[in-house]
Amino acid sequence: MARLSVFEQVSVDGYFVDRHGDMSWAKGRRDEEFDAFVEGNAAGGSTLVFGRVTYEMMASFWPTNWAASANPVVAERMNALPKIVFSRTLGSADWHNTRLVRSDLIGEIERLKGRDSDLAVLGSGSIVAQLAEADLVDEYQIVVFPLVLGGGRSMFEGQTRRFGVEPLEVRRFHNGCVLLRYEPARQ
Amino acid sequence: MARLSVFEQVSVDGYFVDRHGDMSWAKGRRDEEFDAFVEGNAAGGSTLVFGRVTYEMMASFWPTNWAASANPVVAERMNALPKIVFSRTLGSADWHNTRLVRSDLIGEIERLKGRDSDLAVLGSGSIVAQLAEADLVDEYQIVVFPLVLGGGRSMFEGQTRRFGVEPLEVRRFHNGCVLLRYEPARQ
Repeated sequence: MARLSVFEQVSVDGYFVDRHGDMSWAKGRRDEEFDAFVEGNAAGGSTLVFGRVTYEMMASFWPTNWAASANPVVAERMNALPKIVFSRTLGSADWHNTRLVRSDLIGEIERLKGRDSDLAVLGSGSIVAQLAEADLVDEYQIVVFPLVLGGGRSMFEGQTRRFGVEPLEVRRFHNGCVLLRYEPARQ
Repeated sequence: MARLSVFEQVSVDGYFVDRHGDMSWAKGRRDEEFDAFVEGNAAGGSTLVFGRVTYEMMASFWPTNWAASANPVVAERMNALPKIVFSRTLGSADWHNTRLVRSDLIGEIERLKGRDSDLAVLGSGSIVAQLAEADLVDEYQIVVFPLVLGGGRSMFEGQTRRFGVEPLEVRRFHNGCVLLRYEPARQ
């Protein structure tokens, strides 16, 4: 069965976007090991899964010349990889290789997991909470950036059921970022 | 100059108490290394600093027989150490060796830091935010417990200024807890 991973970049106080919906603070200082980790992730060949808000943010960034010059490897992969955005309100999804799905998040993800392609959710708090509640997440990759925002949206916002996790890996990068990899605890 | 450390136990999603103000989920599985770390902390000889909410929670727990049997070393130290609670509304503070301070958090902490005793803030979100904003915190010790709460209070709630931090140590315990030690980034 395919695996579903959640990949989040959060502040020390646990927010993946700040109070204004911005995630541009999530830029590490140059660090070859960290860049290789991010590029390895983007190269994973997974289908990327988004909610509307994160999708719109990324769709307005990665296809630009600025993204191509700032981070060519990641930009190329982000633009090329198959993408799914879940939204009831989005009119169209024009970012290359994106499929817009209007309903049945859980059923759609269950179908996709039954096929051969791994899935990676980026950002997208409410999607993460729904998938976590349905026990469909196999792994959380959380990169803690070295700053405190003081407010924002939690990657688990809307989560009603508390649940345990088990650390798989803890890794500190020279740029001050810390990777926390967890899997859901087996009951 | 004395040092002020903030010691927090948080969930993976960054809350130090859950939606109901409860922190009883912050119990690790038995782990000798983790217990030694907690006991070493409690043994530090610092003056403990609280806001009202965290103070009342701890004052209703540590003096009990239950605390003494569950965790005798930490209970004895918590009861013996000098404590300060900042509150405008608290009638009295009867937990052994506690001083109630009604106003001027920043001035009082600046005076105490000018003397010889180190200070440790436990929990107490709004106090942490005020001290962080006044640049009075020398170190954050954050223990990430292996569970997701889905909601609660952030240890930096009320923080308005975003600020950078530098990791001092990252440590994974066998019981699934992860220690993240940070100091404020030098500007």
